[in-house]
Amino acid sequence: MRLRHKPWAAEKLQSYPQYVTQNPQDFKGKWQKRFAKDQPIHIEVGSGKGQFIIGMAKAHPQINYVAIELQTSVAVSILELQLAEELENLQIINAHGGDLSTFFQTGEVSRVYLNFSDPWPKARHSKRRLTSPKFLSQYQTILNSEGDIHFKTDNMGLFQYSLASLSQYGYVLRQVWLDLHNSDFEGNIQTEYEEKFSTKGHPIYRLEAYLPTKD
Amino acid sequence: MRLRHKPWAAEKLQSYPQYVTQNPQDFKGKWQKRFAKDQPIHIEVGSGKGQFIIGMAKAHPQINYVAIELQTSVAVSILELQLAEELENLQIINAHGGDLSTFFQTGEVSRVYLNFSDPWPKARHSKRRLTSPKFLSQYQTILNSEGDIHFKTDNMGLFQYSLASLSQYGYVLRQVWLDLHNSDFEGNIQTEYEEKFSTKGHPIYRLEAYLPTKD
Repeated sequence: MRLRHKPWAAEKLQSYPQYVTQNPQDFKGKWQKRFAKDQPIHIEVGSGKGQFIIGMAKAHPQINYVAIELQTSVAVSILELQLAEELENLQIINAHGGDLSTFFQTGEVSRVYLNFSDPWPKARHSKRRLTSPKFLSQYQTILNSEGDIHFKTDNMGLFQYSLASLSQYGYVLRQVWLDLHNSDFEGNIQTEYEEKFSTKGHPIYRLEAYLPTKD
Repeated sequence: MRLRHKPWAAEKLQSYPQYVTQNPQDFKGKWQKRFAKDQPIHIEVGSGKGQFIIGMAKAHPQINYVAIELQTSVAVSILELQLAEELENLQIINAHGGDLSTFFQTGEVSRVYLNFSDPWPKARHSKRRLTSPKFLSQYQTILNSEGDIHFKTDNMGLFQYSLASLSQYGYVLRQVWLDLHNSDFEGNIQTEYEEKFSTKGHPIYRLEAYLPTKD
């Protein structure tokens, strides 16, 4: 994403501690306390400007959502949407780096969304992909036993990689879409990026995966 | 595939018992005896006119290939290619119906090829798809512990189904191609159908899958 530097963003994010935290490790195991209701927590890793997660939070009030966006200049856009909506089931994490298992307690999360993650196309950068084993291990730790991963991208290389990576890690594919926008999938909420690129005729790939319970 | 009825086909197939069998159950556990050399056996389920498996047998003399084609009028085309080549590492099964585990002994096969299998697009016919659980169970029985499945198709619906079906059965995806002909995959041998449809711009999907060894 091309970033416009917003020197005021950090200060604005700090002005709304009820919606944004830059110290997510402080809430490990206590996320429910930041929401109005105690209900399943779904997180999005890399929320961009927040169109997807705000849309989801509006559509699914029975779920608590956590948007994670490392870029301060981008996270502030999520906050601006949230200030217009004041959703009681949306929280924003703006933090750099860090292992997700330092942000969330084991089993604290019910679903991980990955949307249009950076494809890191060079093989030597494959470990940075959000579906590489290091990250899959973090998701495994924070997801509860019924938890799952929902992933969509327009990047064919990343999707090919992710199918094999998830499978080899031990995740099971519940369903796969190779052209989401021409499928019968209902309730798709588009990211900004998805809206822009799908109109150019790129197919959108999607998958849902879960870890089988051990016998 | 559109079939031209060939009333002479059955007789011709019967005339070359050294290359063709219509009683594959007679060779269960004894397939190596039908080949010049004792070496890994790869089978193709639904060989059509045989362009793929004849090409593979020529390219890989260190592998024994078994083409399985139920349609007599089509299987005779494989025989005709074989009569021109006289490959000592190619056998043809022309048999109707039957469970593959009645044709091959447990672990007798090292690889199963599925190429452009009938997509059976209606949900109520999903059990007929060659990647549905009933068939995956047969492959599991006949494949040895290092065995794998190589599958390609231009049918998006069948490929989506197959990714999930294989994964849910317990197969692991070694690699997935979402546009085989524009990938760096080497040594692809096209089926007649693949040649015809890929020139129309359809992407060709491919996967390799294996069963993990139990701990």
